[in-house]
Amino acid sequence: MKATTGHERLARRGVMMVISSPSGAGKGTLSRLLLEQDKEIELSISVTTRGRRPSEIDGVHYHFIEKSHFRSMAENNELLEWAEVHGNYYGTPRAPVEKALEAGRDVLFDVDWQGAAQIRDRMPDDVAAIFILPPSMAELRSRLTRRAEDADDVIEKRLVNARYEIQEWTRFDYVVINDDLEGAFNDLKSILTAERLKRERISNSVGGFIERLLG
Amino acid sequence: MKATTGHERLARRGVMMVISSPSGAGKGTLSRLLLEQDKEIELSISVTTRGRRPSEIDGVHYHFIEKSHFRSMAENNELLEWAEVHGNYYGTPRAPVEKALEAGRDVLFDVDWQGAAQIRDRMPDDVAAIFILPPSMAELRSRLTRRAEDADDVIEKRLVNARYEIQEWTRFDYVVINDDLEGAFNDLKSILTAERLKRERISNSVGGFIERLLG
Repeated sequence: MKATTGHERLARRGVMMVISSPSGAGKGTLSRLLLEQDKEIELSISVTTRGRRPSEIDGVHYHFIEKSHFRSMAENNELLEWAEVHGNYYGTPRAPVEKALEAGRDVLFDVDWQGAAQIRDRMPDDVAAIFILPPSMAELRSRLTRRAEDADDVIEKRLVNARYEIQEWTRFDYVVINDDLEGAFNDLKSILTAERLKRERISNSVGGFIERLLG
Repeated sequence: MKATTGHERLARRGVMMVISSPSGAGKGTLSRLLLEQDKEIELSISVTTRGRRPSEIDGVHYHFIEKSHFRSMAENNELLEWAEVHGNYYGTPRAPVEKALEAGRDVLFDVDWQGAAQIRDRMPDDVAAIFILPPSMAELRSRLTRRAEDADDVIEKRLVNARYEIQEWTRFDYVVINDDLEGAFNDLKSILTAERLKRERISNSVGGFIERLLG
């Protein structure tokens, strides 16, 4: 298997890359950059029971499903994590993830720390969990204000939540400070490259490679 | 603490980077490049009881010591690994490694798989062990011939040894194929960057960082 550089890489099991951060710390921007620039990683698409908004496409932003369907998925262990928010259910389906990992494709999960903890509990050997920290609370406030998505009271609520979320950093494998987008993005790419080279992920193919090497 | 890019990094415990490969697979070249380009990593200097050669400098190539000194170091658990080769003893002193790690500097070990296994046994939480594979035995032979350091019978012996050494790949954390120097070097740098961002290595400083963040 050849990587984009032409450098030889062994066939491997995919990486489950879990990225989490308080709102405004740059998780969304970093995820988007990674998905654009790296053709071996894809975003996990959640299922939800809430109604589709006019701006959303079924199968792209979410898989929109009925509550009865969601319940049966949860009961049959077909969800890697799920949560209820304002009476609606959101979850990560297991089957597409298993399929991607077996095919050597990586899956990106943009989830909160509770979601990250559930996913890691269910797939401990496959997960690389990264926590993104803002350089300061002042910078976090200024980013939330600059992106102009939220009313002032919503921003205040996000900042209060951030103070709680930040304290969950111990649940993650890696910690990256997003003071500088390019630096943080390079850190993220290095983590993904290193995880892909881990012995456990290539153990099925390295045996064959060595047989050919010594044959 | 600022990294060379200007991107903010947390103070951290250093990485013990162990690189191993069969002779001719490129371990020496890759190590030299890493030491030249990355100012936070330094080479571990072994102690040896063999005589200094005219081309060697004490404290640079080796620390040249008496057999009695070596024995007392081994007995006092002051060596991370050691071996006897043709009646001479070689070992890796522990004290400078501990000192570097505590100061947040990384240490590179260019050792065979037995050395790597001993070091990992003694410092399991600090080691990132990388195994470099040649792309083929034909390429390995051609590199050993091209570098023109060894007589033909020595090359044959190195190739026989390589066949044994390659089978020890399961003792390592990462496996890199050196088919292309630039690609393999980028893999190595990514592994080092990722290891530096691991939660365990920054756990002493991230607490303080978060206190300042929230305070």
